[in-house]
Amino acid sequence: MSILVVGSVAFDTVETPFGKAEKVLGGSASFFSVAASFFAPVSLVGVVGDDFGEKELAAFRGRDIDVSGLERMDGKTFHWRGKYSYDLNARETVCTDLNVFEFFKPKIPAAYRESRHVFLGNIDPVLQLDVLAQVEKPEIVACDTMNFWISGKPEELRKTLERVDVLLINDAEARQLSGEWNVVKAARAIRAMGPRTLVLKKGEHGVLMFSDAGSFAAPAYPLEDVFDPTGAGDTFAGGFLGYLAGAGDVDEPTLRKAVIMGSTLASFCVEAFSLDRLLRLTRPEIDDRFRLFKRLTHFETL
Amino acid sequence: MSILVVGSVAFDTVETPFGKAEKVLGGSASFFSVAASFFAPVSLVGVVGDDFGEKELAAFRGRDIDVSGLERMDGKTFHWRGKYSYDLNARETVCTDLNVFEFFKPKIPAAYRESRHVFLGNIDPVLQLDVLAQVEKPEIVACDTMNFWISGKPEELRKTLERVDVLLINDAEARQLSGEWNVVKAARAIRAMGPRTLVLKKGEHGVLMFSDAGSFAAPAYPLEDVFDPTGAGDTFAGGFLGYLAGAGDVDEPTLRKAVIMGSTLASFCVEAFSLDRLLRLTRPEIDDRFRLFKRLTHFETL
Repeated sequence: MSILVVGSVAFDTVETPFGKAEKVLGGSASFFSVAASFFAPVSLVGVVGDDFGEKELAAFRGRDIDVSGLERMDGKTFHWRGKYSYDLNARETVCTDLNVFEFFKPKIPAAYRESRHVFLGNIDPVLQLDVLAQVEKPEIVACDTMNFWISGKPEELRKTLERVDVLLINDAEARQLSGEWNVVKAARAIRAMGPRTLVLKKGEHGVLMFSDAGSFAAPAYPLEDVFDPTGAGDTFAGGFLGYLAGAGDVDEPTLRKAVIMGSTLASFCVEAFSLDRLLRLTRPEIDDRFRLFKRLTHFETL
Repeated sequence: MSILVVGSVAFDTVETPFGKAEKVLGGSASFFSVAASFFAPVSLVGVVGDDFGEKELAAFRGRDIDVSGLERMDGKTFHWRGKYSYDLNARETVCTDLNVFEFFKPKIPAAYRESRHVFLGNIDPVLQLDVLAQVEKPEIVACDTMNFWISGKPEELRKTLERVDVLLINDAEARQLSGEWNVVKAARAIRAMGPRTLVLKKGEHGVLMFSDAGSFAAPAYPLEDVFDPTGAGDTFAGGFLGYLAGAGDVDEPTLRKAVIMGSTLASFCVEAFSLDRLLRLTRPEIDDRFRLFKRLTHFETL
């Protein structure tokens, strides 16, 4: 059974200190799908406009990504314009043209309704809940959200979270959602809202996972050239959930390996604009870097 | 042979969101010495005023810390006043009264001159170099510094760094010292200045070590209650160098365990004001938390 992902498919115009990319493929569902497809088949549900053509679709072809749930509407595709300053941690959204995405109402094709793994990309929590109403007892529901929904639709988000198994958000979002500054306290508060596993993404500082078995800390891979961080979080989610789906297990050792796999995929994502690096990535490269994470973090016992 | 530490012994007045401590024992050499003394004997060189009495000295008694190099001058002891905001990462120095520390001119007692391990606390690089002129071929010289010296005495600092084996600084200082934003590039530039091992301290985000063998990432221990971060960096250095001295080795596995030991000691330090937690710490508690670091970071291979 394939992984169902619902999220944005977009054009990104991105400026970093190292260059500029105009109207390149982006969106949470795009990054997620390509990353996850290394490990398991993916079914993508999203919406694009009539400016989204074969050139863009090519990114999904030749992979195990089913785009029959990618709706096409009259109008233009969601277009995000962003700019990164020199430190690459501070992102400035220059402009968000929702276009057809404003009218996105996810319709889950019948063939996807029995998906065992579901990823709810960062969209309106009302739509996230609507997606869950259309699927039948998934084993793992993973979910992303953002400050806009945490402050704008807190009650709706709470309802969604009750049905989420794994929440993947950044540390600032966790603090906002829980009202706690300390991340351990924030994690406890959030896990009480529903998600039994919380994955806190901290960018260049790595990931903290809180689960029934305790906490797990993973670094980001120290890269000499970070070109464009756009999509790193969704790529992490794709590697993470893809690995879980491929492994067919959710015990703690598998969850931890999934975190490292997510970090591995994300470390490639940021090496180039858009999905460029992911699209030329090979499985041996992935496995090599996973092993480098082991070398990066290993120490002997006393 | 004991570890020689040269640095400040001070009174700290600290305000955090959780309380206030007035004129409590602080200073880089104090935190370092107590942390290192769990693993190896320590010889402390510093200066205090006539307001520094038996009560303060009690912190060093009953441990393997030789304070015969702790000079006493007429006048008051160095007094630092600082304040932490809610996030505990941003520290504001309210006031620095150098007092007798302004006239500190380290004199290394004859008995310490053959020390195999030397820690140069964050003092004027001219004094750091002067200390090195007084010791005979130490095996490992570890060193701390700060923005004030990086911008104020760059050439003097460069001369000191040529003789340093392990530099322990935070990520902001590494960026300033190297002129590189990217930490991998910063590490390469700094290692070319002399220190073959660079330990980058990132507070709640842990530590990155760059050595001949490559890079090593260690998280900070996720604590629910961080009370006062003052002294965490020097405590880390004490645990790190203390462990190396006790182990009598500097190969990569030992360096990595030293990083985890430094992180372990620092995780206790921040649980209370001043040296309070370190002074009631036991070796079994240390070993237990070291093991928790293993549980926190371990993942299986593919």
